[in-house]
Amino acid sequence: MSATRYAYLGPEGTFTEVALRTLPEAATRELTPMLSVPAALDAVRAGEAAAALVPIENSVEGGITATLDALTSGEPLMIYREVLLSIRFALLVRPGTKLTDIKTVTAHPAAQPQVRNWIKTNLPDVLWESAASNADGARLVQEGRYDAAFAGEFAAATYGLEPLVTDIHDAVNAQTRFVLVGRPARPAAPTGADKTSVVIWLGPDRPGALLELLQEFAVRGVNLMLIQSRPTGAGIGNYCFAVDAEGHIADRRVGEALMGLKRIAPKVRFLGSYPRAGVTAQDVAELRHGTSDQEFTEASDWLARCQDGRA
Amino acid sequence: MSATRYAYLGPEGTFTEVALRTLPEAATRELTPMLSVPAALDAVRAGEAAAALVPIENSVEGGITATLDALTSGEPLMIYREVLLSIRFALLVRPGTKLTDIKTVTAHPAAQPQVRNWIKTNLPDVLWESAASNADGARLVQEGRYDAAFAGEFAAATYGLEPLVTDIHDAVNAQTRFVLVGRPARPAAPTGADKTSVVIWLGPDRPGALLELLQEFAVRGVNLMLIQSRPTGAGIGNYCFAVDAEGHIADRRVGEALMGLKRIAPKVRFLGSYPRAGVTAQDVAELRHGTSDQEFTEASDWLARCQDGRA
Amino acid sequence: MSATRYAYLGPEGTFTEVALRTLPEAATRELTPMLSVPAALDAVRAGEAAAALVPIENSVEGGITATLDALTSGEPLMIYREVLLSIRFALLVRPGTKLTDIKTVTAHPAAQPQVRNWIKTNLPDVLWESAASNADGARLVQEGRYDAAFAGEFAAATYGLEPLVTDIHDAVNAQTRFVLVGRPARPAAPTGADKTSVVIWLGPDRPGALLELLQEFAVRGVNLMLIQSRPTGAGIGNYCFAVDAEGHIADRRVGEALMGLKRIAPKVRFLGSYPRAGVTAQDVAELRHGTSDQEFTEASDWLARCQDGRA
Amino acid sequence: MSATRYAYLGPEGTFTEVALRTLPEAATRELTPMLSVPAALDAVRAGEAAAALVPIENSVEGGITATLDALTSGEPLMIYREVLLSIRFALLVRPGTKLTDIKTVTAHPAAQPQVRNWIKTNLPDVLWESAASNADGARLVQEGRYDAAFAGEFAAATYGLEPLVTDIHDAVNAQTRFVLVGRPARPAAPTGADKTSVVIWLGPDRPGALLELLQEFAVRGVNLMLIQSRPTGAGIGNYCFAVDAEGHIADRRVGEALMGLKRIAPKVRFLGSYPRAGVTAQDVAELRHGTSDQEFTEASDWLARCQDGRA
Repeated sequence: MSATRYAYLGPEGTFTEVALRTLPEAATRELTPMLSVPAALDAVRAGEAAAALVPIENSVEGGITATLDALTSGEPLMIYREVLLSIRFALLVRPGTKLTDIKTVTAHPAAQPQVRNWIKTNLPDVLWESAASNADGARLVQEGRYDAAFAGEFAAATYGLEPLVTDIHDAVNAQTRFVLVGRPARPAAPTGADKTSVVIWLGPDRPGALLELLQEFAVRGVNLMLIQSRPTGAGIGNYCFAVDAEGHIADRRVGEALMGLKRIAPKVRFLGSYPRAGVTAQDVAELRHGTSDQEFTEASDWLARCQDGRA
Repeated sequence: MSATRYAYLGPEGTFTEVALRTLPEAATRELTPMLSVPAALDAVRAGEAAAALVPIENSVEGGITATLDALTSGEPLMIYREVLLSIRFALLVRPGTKLTDIKTVTAHPAAQPQVRNWIKTNLPDVLWESAASNADGARLVQEGRYDAAFAGEFAAATYGLEPLVTDIHDAVNAQTRFVLVGRPARPAAPTGADKTSVVIWLGPDRPGALLELLQEFAVRGVNLMLIQSRPTGAGIGNYCFAVDAEGHIADRRVGEALMGLKRIAPKVRFLGSYPRAGVTAQDVAELRHGTSDQEFTEASDWLARCQDGRA
Repeated sequence: MSATRYAYLGPEGTFTEVALRTLPEAATRELTPMLSVPAALDAVRAGEAAAALVPIENSVEGGITATLDALTSGEPLMIYREVLLSIRFALLVRPGTKLTDIKTVTAHPAAQPQVRNWIKTNLPDVLWESAASNADGARLVQEGRYDAAFAGEFAAATYGLEPLVTDIHDAVNAQTRFVLVGRPARPAAPTGADKTSVVIWLGPDRPGALLELLQEFAVRGVNLMLIQSRPTGAGIGNYCFAVDAEGHIADRRVGEALMGLKRIAPKVRFLGSYPRAGVTAQDVAELRHGTSDQEFTEASDWLARCQDGRA
Repeated sequence: MSATRYAYLGPEGTFTEVALRTLPEAATRELTPMLSVPAALDAVRAGEAAAALVPIENSVEGGITATLDALTSGEPLMIYREVLLSIRFALLVRPGTKLTDIKTVTAHPAAQPQVRNWIKTNLPDVLWESAASNADGARLVQEGRYDAAFAGEFAAATYGLEPLVTDIHDAVNAQTRFVLVGRPARPAAPTGADKTSVVIWLGPDRPGALLELLQEFAVRGVNLMLIQSRPTGAGIGNYCFAVDAEGHIADRRVGEALMGLKRIAPKVRFLGSYPRAGVTAQDVAELRHGTSDQEFTEASDWLARCQDGRA
């Protein structure tokens, strides 16, 4: 039954599965690997899964475009949770393989920039071939098609391989952010350390439009945490922007900013308000003067008094 | 009885009285001249007059500071109407006086910049003495204290003087704007060509604060028609700003801008929303995209749907 | 000879004379009182005086409009110094006059808001008559025309009066700012605590224009200390703005901001860069990151390298 | 000899080669395919090629991250030309293959979003495998490893395949933009229809920083044509922005904006000023008032006069 099933970007043994298993409820769900992000999200849209965990941003590649695009188009979905995972690669080989034996390596294309420098230093002449996923790369090594695969160390056992080198990562803080996506529903109540995701389309021939959109946030003291441009598919130079803003749609400053965007942008898609991973209300930067819910309420009350001639 | 009495900046025979008589209801009111703007406004505050007409801006002197200050401090009052009057001075003299006889002239200080160039050309050696009002200047000429007074031509008869020169005005479009002020009450409904007046205090040591305040208007597409700085009395460099904005407090873009000001400024005083003189809804500039009441309502509805998971 | 003569807003015994005498060089100059601010400035324009000291802003009335207007129109002049003076009024009477004897008081109109509250409390029924200057008011009391005059205590001796009440001031920090004005010349070198004065005209029908002008300052981190609107005389709603900005025209951030204004405003008049009164370089707020002369120079050098293909 | 060699993203038969051959000088250069964008750019850095043509943006995927990243890090390079190419895919198969025979397809990952919808409709059950390039995918089909490859129709002959379907493209205006990259040198003179590319780093913990950067462009009337965020590799939420601005570094508005960025951003890399493909000076939007070189020069002259006391 679908309410107990969570889809995720498979196959088994990827970082996504590791991330999913950090969620307490994962223990009581049926976890189903899917071949691609669109497939995982379509399973949710079709009601075959209650939710799907997919990668959305990593510290090397930035926004994961397949995920952003799958959330931006098609039937609306919403984000309910995020998970942050530190990413460390292992170089997996068939038992007995030595570093000097390796002529070909494989992994998902997103892994390449995370290990590029390591390869340059340690395997300068190796041939890189892309795989459909890191786990699939491991499988292809098992089958003997390639000599080595970059993947999570946890994948070695699944495919009968051994980790020749571990803890490989080019950037110091290599992390991937995953999101748990479901069908639209009322967001969970604010926790005090929340994030709101939205996709905003720009009108054609509006070069200053991004500045206007950012001012809708700025004038209400809403900080932005991510701005990722994505082409709309309507030709070179036509972009939409995936934006993560600090705060919850139930916060009045966020709500008013979203309404401002909705009025001036050709299209806005709300992707959800959800707790920030690894951050508590104590860690959140103090609100700018004049942007708390209480100040919004006082200003509304004052406006009502003015309109009634009682100010 | 006070409900039928309108006070105005007197004495009789000033431009203010002429402006007041352009209001249809003036015909059925008892019109009472007052010695000063503060006196006229205090009569309203005390309930001795239903309203008071006072000058607030002219095209030569700018904002009339006595009026702005009297509206800014003391018990709150509200503006309900505005009247625009073209200003032309006459040089009033005792019958028989010739231009070459004139050694001293008088008028209210506000008249001086409006006739300065005319004096330089026609009476270069004359001595200027300030009077409490233009009409009072005429009275002082009648009493023989000065040789000539600048005042409205209509004042000649009252004081037994004759207009030696008429149609004197330095600026081409010399106009004065008057406002009808009453005790706070619900503003009249929007006409489509309205103006909203407000006084905004800046916080201390906030050099960029004016920019922030203007952005509260700009981001919601609210045009400004007057920005007049006034010292708060708390020392050099402490200012408040009298602002006239296009639109009515009942317009959602204006209401939201006012709430934004209220949240970030230490103090805001609403002075009223009222029809613009000499302008009809047809003359008003088209609203910027995304700032109509309908667009505000649609955005509110969309936000509500997002919050319910139905967007 | 004019090079040794300083004009000032007279007559003798006004606060302006007191302010002028705080300048060290005043001891070696011939100090000539003039009847009005325009007369004092015209004496400079005509070469009859090397400079003129006139009031430009006070903490009760704000910008002194006669001075702003006389600097804004006519042959260009420049400000070279500013003087701050605390303002305390004395009530001057003929010897023997008691408070209860006073039926009429006089002073310059600018004094009125500074003593308004004191009058309300202590002389509620007195009749106010405006004088051409505070010193002239004292003279009229000497002549018996009025019962009392508000003026600086120092004026009592000159006119054979005695101070009945001293230290009268409505606002706690009542101050007046005076400027020493001369013909255009190269400004003195920056001191590290300087101020730049400029008048900026707005184009017609440009409601957002003030915001644009302020952004020319803001984007370069130039703080504003005074923004005073003045009508241009071209009709209601046509304004120019007198602006005092922190810094010196020789500071690159200020120079670039002024050029930005010059490009977008119909007209800009530079009124001088001069040391701030009562402020030393130690007191000045730290520059915003990226706005020091050194950072401007480094950026220019970098741009030149980019243009040469050497960046 | 390297001065006559142009590298490009190979292998032979890719869209990049087609784009390169649209440049007139390509006829007299030795064209050398490289295995990857970094390899092509490194050949230029090493002096083994005079220039390299690489894809930088397409209308489906947006900025090509491999290219952006290779330009952003490593030894500085500069862009000298851009080429726009309409992208149409053909489905290449071994002779005799029918649509119903196809179980596996391959192509470069960047091709996937451009044919995703076509696959969904026409080959819903096909298995997608990524190839190192579209041409390499064709080679793998020739070798029999996959059943079909998406590539340019021109690649069919090279690999002994036949185009089963042609003119495949999901978006209506599918285009790819390529840039010709060389070692830093003085940019070509402005043509009146130019573009300037730059990479700007944001400081840590500066949520409003992007707004500030955009204002450096906006206040000088410089329109933006592309804003592409890229992670800096320093952890989730650390971004730099690749920006394409209208105009040439020799245009004063552009130069001043770049200097402004240089002052406030931790790091800026200039990537070149070059003619816009498919646009002539006649097509370029009129400059905003106050931003032409002549207006900049007039403002500089005025500033110099002010500094000399001659304004």
